[in-house]
Amino acid sequence: MSNRYSYHNLEEFVVRLFTKIGCPVDDAKVIAEVLLVAELRGIPSHGLARIKTYLGLYQAGRIKLNNKVKIIHETPSTATIDCGNGFGMIGAKKAMLLAIQKAKISGTGWVSVNNSNHFGIAGYYAMMALQEDMIGITTTNASPLVAPTWSISKFLGTNPIAVAIPAGKNPPFVADFATTPITQGKLALIERKGKNCPTGYVQNKTGHPSTNPGILKQGGAIVPLGSDYGHGSHKGYCLGAIVDILSSVLGGANFGPFTPPQVAFLPLLEKSTGKGIGHFFGAMRIDAFRPANDFKNSIDEWIETFRNATPIQGHKKVLIPGDPERKMTEINMKKGISIIPDVEKELLNIAEKYHIKFLNETSMTIS
Amino acid sequence: MSNRYSYHNLEEFVVRLFTKIGCPVDDAKVIAEVLLVAELRGIPSHGLARIKTYLGLYQAGRIKLNNKVKIIHETPSTATIDCGNGFGMIGAKKAMLLAIQKAKISGTGWVSVNNSNHFGIAGYYAMMALQEDMIGITTTNASPLVAPTWSISKFLGTNPIAVAIPAGKNPPFVADFATTPITQGKLALIERKGKNCPTGYVQNKTGHPSTNPGILKQGGAIVPLGSDYGHGSHKGYCLGAIVDILSSVLGGANFGPFTPPQVAFLPLLEKSTGKGIGHFFGAMRIDAFRPANDFKNSIDEWIETFRNATPIQGHKKVLIPGDPERKMTEINMKKGISIIPDVEKELLNIAEKYHIKFLNETSMTIS
Repeated sequence: MSNRYSYHNLEEFVVRLFTKIGCPVDDAKVIAEVLLVAELRGIPSHGLARIKTYLGLYQAGRIKLNNKVKIIHETPSTATIDCGNGFGMIGAKKAMLLAIQKAKISGTGWVSVNNSNHFGIAGYYAMMALQEDMIGITTTNASPLVAPTWSISKFLGTNPIAVAIPAGKNPPFVADFATTPITQGKLALIERKGKNCPTGYVQNKTGHPSTNPGILKQGGAIVPLGSDYGHGSHKGYCLGAIVDILSSVLGGANFGPFTPPQVAFLPLLEKSTGKGIGHFFGAMRIDAFRPANDFKNSIDEWIETFRNATPIQGHKKVLIPGDPERKMTEINMKKGISIIPDVEKELLNIAEKYHIKFLNETSMTIS
Repeated sequence: MSNRYSYHNLEEFVVRLFTKIGCPVDDAKVIAEVLLVAELRGIPSHGLARIKTYLGLYQAGRIKLNNKVKIIHETPSTATIDCGNGFGMIGAKKAMLLAIQKAKISGTGWVSVNNSNHFGIAGYYAMMALQEDMIGITTTNASPLVAPTWSISKFLGTNPIAVAIPAGKNPPFVADFATTPITQGKLALIERKGKNCPTGYVQNKTGHPSTNPGILKQGGAIVPLGSDYGHGSHKGYCLGAIVDILSSVLGGANFGPFTPPQVAFLPLLEKSTGKGIGHFFGAMRIDAFRPANDFKNSIDEWIETFRNATPIQGHKKVLIPGDPERKMTEINMKKGISIIPDVEKELLNIAEKYHIKFLNETSMTIS
């Protein structure tokens, strides 16, 4: 059993920690929010478990505090931002706010970002558009673990795509997914359980199908969405490549195999093809295409139609993207966020090391 | 063996045919070009084989000639277009030209389209952006053949995504792919050969995996990219859904299951959720994000890096999206476009029916 903590208590802890190392409080609040939204949505691989890694990168001098986020190129509907090599969330949130601001004036806004680092869940930024009655789009490149179809070279990240679409009386449509059959985090979980994975997730160092979830450490690679050529892995490769190019080449970040490792124990690469890792953000006003109420009526009908699709017998009903994460958020807000013992231990050690309290004395642990 | 015909001769024939039924010559030229670019690129399922179907829809009064293409909503970077229920190519090309025009002024341009019909290959429109040093994006919804994960309801089309990215000294990156493991055209080809398809392409009417390529006629469905939930078919479902929403809900076209059939032998649906089928077009100036030459140097390096990825032993080398279609275009321009006997016979019958020559007397058949 893992302990459960309230969102508020965990937020206070993360802010305390990042201000202690020297982050401005506003930056620390952004880091805390993005990590905790991942926890709320049931994606702990992108939540508090990342703190140790982030601190490692900071201690190794590979992430800057008080980073300046600068607009380096601009048109009425676009911009490119240099994030000053700070924690990824800080520049990413500013970039999405700029995309939204441009959309207010020009109908849509598109911001490419370089000199950034791991930014948490892509969905966080896409969802920022919802409250503005805009469609939000976010992509990022990531550490290279994925081989293009017919290759053994790990040249792409699991490069996620997030798209958030506002609705009327229904909850919004929120898709946030890797362009691979499996993520590294889920592979690690299978490995920890001592199990094999199905074929179609990974290949070994010679490019043959493997069921070993630890094969990445032996020269293996994750395969693109589609799993093999016969089932369309070249389409998954196209998707991963499009995400990489929009997130890196467009804004001047490192692409594909040159994406800097987001863990301190891996050395920086000698060759660089740009600055840091990169992201791409888009915001489109729904009323830039048709009256907002018409759009909302139509998307409500879409959502209700798909929710009422006939399920395969014995299977769950058809989900609208974002359904599982929304339900998880409701549970976690009510019952508290469950932290697995390994991560809890890590956080306690970090609190001790930085001489801060993990929880305030007045705070309540929900167990 | 199939006969080969020159691009020029086939273009003349298609223009002759569509002007004969009453299309303005400029419209007929657009239809001919889009169909023949599909033939050149080696995608005959979206080429001349469609002519019989298009004429059937016109004869059934389901497609209008001399259709008016109207801008019905607009901002500096967006527009929505009503295509007046004409042949899909006519409104689609105008929509992409408008996206490009808006990008020239605002950095990017985004156009949603309703009241349209089948528009040929999505890649044609995305590639229009290349000569302007822009990234081109095109999506369309299509006749519902695909079941969302966990469902037996055919609610989505094979909904393609096309992205064209200009390069410097290398040929451009051109991805154009269905968001399913297989297209209906390729299934039909397997069926015609009397073969089974692998599992992971289709399911039967109860939602169980099937190897029958003709299962769609027996209540079966194509599955989304990823093939099954364990291999990420919910990600393919997300992609198909995003394409559907951008192509229909955003611009006021019919969505998902209400997409009008693009063949005359299927009756129109009683329920409508918008006008016709819909598309979505985007154009982004590369110099809206960074100087064009910097972008081109970087994308050239990207292309050369990926082309030189280590291939799996015994496999072809790693391809850049667009490579196979470009090579096919070179061959077809040189040797002539090969037309399979069934389609050739169809075209000869059509020529006879409409009292036009299939080929001019001066034209040369390359065989």
